[in-house]
This record gives sequence, structure tokens and C-alpha cells, in this order.
Amino acid sequence: MGQLIKGKPAADAVTVHLIEEVKNLKRKNIIPKLTIVRVGKNGSDMAYERGATKRCNSIGIEIAIKELPEDISQQSFIDELKKINEDSTTDGIMVFRPLPKQLDEDIIKHLIDPNKDVDCFNPLNMSKLLEDDNSGFSPCTAAAVIEILDYYKIKIEGKRVVVIGRSMVVGKPLSLLLLNRNATVTICHSRTQKMENICSQADIVVVCIGKSKIINKSYIKSGAAVIDVGINVDTNGALCGDVDTENCIEKVGMITPVPGGVGSVTTSILAKQVVMACKRQNNI
Amino acid sequence: MGQLIKGKPAADAVTVHLIEEVKNLKRKNIIPKLTIVRVGKNGSDMAYERGATKRCNSIGIEIAIKELPEDISQQSFIDELKKINEDSTTDGIMVFRPLPKQLDEDIIKHLIDPNKDVDCFNPLNMSKLLEDDNSGFSPCTAAAVIEILDYYKIKIEGKRVVVIGRSMVVGKPLSLLLLNRNATVTICHSRTQKMENICSQADIVVVCIGKSKIINKSYIKSGAAVIDVGINVDTNGALCGDVDTENCIEKVGMITPVPGGVGSVTTSILAKQVVMACKRQNNI
Repeated sequence: MGQLIKGKPAADAVTVHLIEEVKNLKRKNIIPKLTIVRVGKNGSDMAYERGATKRCNSIGIEIAIKELPEDISQQSFIDELKKINEDSTTDGIMVFRPLPKQLDEDIIKHLIDPNKDVDCFNPLNMSKLLEDDNSGFSPCTAAAVIEILDYYKIKIEGKRVVVIGRSMVVGKPLSLLLLNRNATVTICHSRTQKMENICSQADIVVVCIGKSKIINKSYIKSGAAVIDVGINVDTNGALCGDVDTENCIEKVGMITPVPGGVGSVTTSILAKQVVMACKRQNNI
Repeated sequence: MGQLIKGKPAADAVTVHLIEEVKNLKRKNIIPKLTIVRVGKNGSDMAYERGATKRCNSIGIEIAIKELPEDISQQSFIDELKKINEDSTTDGIMVFRPLPKQLDEDIIKHLIDPNKDVDCFNPLNMSKLLEDDNSGFSPCTAAAVIEILDYYKIKIEGKRVVVIGRSMVVGKPLSLLLLNRNATVTICHSRTQKMENICSQADIVVVCIGKSKIINKSYIKSGAAVIDVGINVDTNGALCGDVDTENCIEKVGMITPVPGGVGSVTTSILAKQVVMACKRQNNI
């Protein structure tokens, strides 16, 4: 029987550490601050925002929400973003994506101050992942996967890791983070042939494709660690991951549940990167 | 017996196509121009420069060499680069790397005009590879590997490809180019365990580690395509690749020789990207 590894203990460990860090900063009269930019009232954005607010409050990070109208023009959005870039009290900025269609992400992504870009929206930070330059920021979900692996002492170096999915928010940056940690990484995707064969060689399988319970035990090597990044709604209306956890639990070494797995760690990573941004901006 | 696939026919095919393109441009009074920036008189830089000059001349691309003193200061280098960026007759810029130690590549790479950056020095172009955005440029050697695969009709989509080596000039960008072409890519490196086992599952193996003849037939699946990017000098003083070609030739489907393989294609890719840059800058 495999071990169900929950996100909460990993998130709590990060939080405990950050509380100490923020205390030390406050002694120097520095208060880390995150500004969240949300366009419209998307339900899942607002749910994430509540989670992030709660997490930041518990750590002592100040949080500001900039809600912008759903039909905001490109120029008005850019003006607002520039104001936040220039706001010296803001250390970290997170912009909910995807943005509405009238806003051109390919232009906007270059305009967020890379030093405040705590969710790795700006290509300059993305290219730092590629260069194994840790002076930037990682996308929070990708970094949350690494945090869980580290918390549960799952060795990355030298291990065979299969990442299923190649999105710009999880699959690709996560593959780079794993490569930078000296894993031997294979990226699988919709065009991959014989995926079961490839996956079942992996010591660690990370699934981030966004399809309900699509990965079963035939993809998993006995004893492997499985990290499920998917958050889907199953036919009964319940939350589920990309992995059929029940089907796999007997075979895996460890597996993250959905809900309660990777998703529980992302806001702590966001907070971690806000504190990191704050320290860098204050040369600490 | 595997087929030795040479670079020259692939390079010639690119050249023939470019000659036509440049003729068409000249009818519009547009002459593509490459400016090469070389600091000092490094032998291999100068050899590459001669090859690039010959190639560009044969195509009708104008070429300018900016030779700068070995001990040039950071500020003087930046001033020179800015002049070339602003020179409206220059469509493409190639800077020989690595630069001497007094020059900070981490600063300079951001300063080359991304629209003229035909060897993908600027991180903005590197991040476009990650985003599968083909409005940028690829590192010439990485793109030369793709050119050879295409010329010899070696299918990439859906195939298992192992890239051995993770440098910023070949291994990483090539892995992204292959992923963008829907290959299932595994990146191996010095910390990879059981590399023979992993490589010998691949339909295509690309070797770019810079160690003489380190890959023998035990790493290769029967009938696989092997692309050897290494250029080394063996114990007899002769040029050789990273692959022991003699040892592998019986087992492979196709293999590139060294010399005469990938290296023969890079200058044609450079020329191709100069013409591409020229057309974009003229909105053609």
C-alpha cells in the first residue's frame, strides 16, 4: 500500500519558516507586500485569492487586491500595472491568467517588473529557469511540486522523472526545475507514443494534463512517487486529479491526493517568493 | 550497415533556396547584411568566421566583421554593440562567445537587439523557444540538427529522442525545438544513471557533450538515427565527434560524421536566419 502524501504538512513547514523570516524583516521595519491583479470576478481566481490572502495574513505578509473591470482596455491595464510596478511598498505582483481576450498577454508579460514577478509571468524569469539561474522566480505550481518532493525526502538527483504535460505554467518550467536538480527528465504529451511504457520506467511521475483520472496503474512503476497536479471535476461533480488515485494507491510508493496535494502548497510558495522578492529588493 | 549522412547536401539545399530569396530581395533593393562581432583573434572563431563569410558571399548576403581588442572594456563593448544595433544596414548580428572575462555576458546578452539576434544570444529569443513562438531565432547549431533530420526525412513527431548534453547553446534549446516538433524528449547529462539503457530506447539520439568518441553502440538501438554534434580532437590530433562512429556504423540506421556532419550546416542556418531577420525588418 502506497503512502498518500498530503500537501498541508509541506505548506505548513514553509509557513513556519516564513513567519520567522517576516518577524526578522519587521524588526528592520520592512513589511513584505503582495499585490494581486485580478481582472473580473472569475470564480477560481477568487477562490485562489482567498487562499492566498489567508496564507499571507497568517505569515504577516501584507496583501492588496487590485480588481480591474472585465472590459478594461489594454492601455488602462498597462497603466495600472505600471503603477503597481512603481509602488515601492509592493514587493511581489501576481496577475491572474489567462487575461480577457482584449488584453494581449504577449505584450503585457514583458511589462511586469521582473524583480516583483513572483509567479514567473515575465519571459526574463522564464529564461532564467532555462539558464539554471536562481536569481529569478518560478511558476508557483511548478515550484510546489519540487517543495513536496523535498519535504517528503524524495530524491530528485539522478532519478528518472517523467513529466506528463508541457504547459508554460507547469509542464515546461517544472521539467527545467527538475533538470536543474539533476534529474533525467522526459517530457510526455498528447503526441507521445507508448506512454505507458515510458512512464512505467520513471522513479517519479508528475502529471499535469488536466484530464480526469486519465493515469492508472499501468503507467506506474511499482514503488514510484506520483505527483498529481491536475484539478478537475469528475462526473459526480467532485474534485479529482489527473491520476486515478484509488487504482494506483496499491502500486505506488507515494502519491499526492487531489484535493489536498499540490494545490495546498502553491500559496505557500507564492508567499515564499514574495518574501524572497522583498529581501532581494532590500538587499538582504 | 548504417548510412553516413553528411551535412553538405542539407547545407547546399538551404543555400540554393536562400540564393533565390536574396535575388528576390535585391529586386526590391534590399541586401541582407550580417555583422559578426569578434573580440580578439581566437582560432576557432576565425575559422568559423571564414566559413560564414564564404557561405554569405555565395548567397549574396553582405557581411561585416567587427573585430574588437581582446582587452576591450565592458562599456566600450556595449557602445560598439549599440552602434551595430542601431545600424539600419545590419539585419543580423552574431557575437562570438564565450566573451573574455572582463565582459559580463549576463548583462551584454540583454543588450543585443532581439530582432537582429540571429544566434539566439538574447534571453528573449531563448524564452520564445520555450513558448514555441517561432517569431524569434534559434541557436544555429541546434537548428542545424533539425535541418539535417528534416533533409534526410527522419521523422521527429511522436518519436523518442534522447539528447545527451544540456548546454545553453545546443542541448537545452535543441530539446525545446524537438519538443515543439512533438518529439518525446529525454535530456541526459553527467548525472544520468543507466544512460545506456535510456539511450538505447531512442529512435533518435543527439550527442552534444564534447567528449571524444564517448558514445558507442551499446547506447544505440538498432536502426536509430544518431546525430553527433561534438567536435573534438582525438589522441592522434584528428577531428572526431562525441560518438565512436566506426563502432556504431553497423548498428545505426543513419549517423552524421565528424567532420562533415552538423558542423557543415551551421553557417547555412546562420545565413537563413539573417535572411529571415532581413525579411521581418522589411515586413516581407
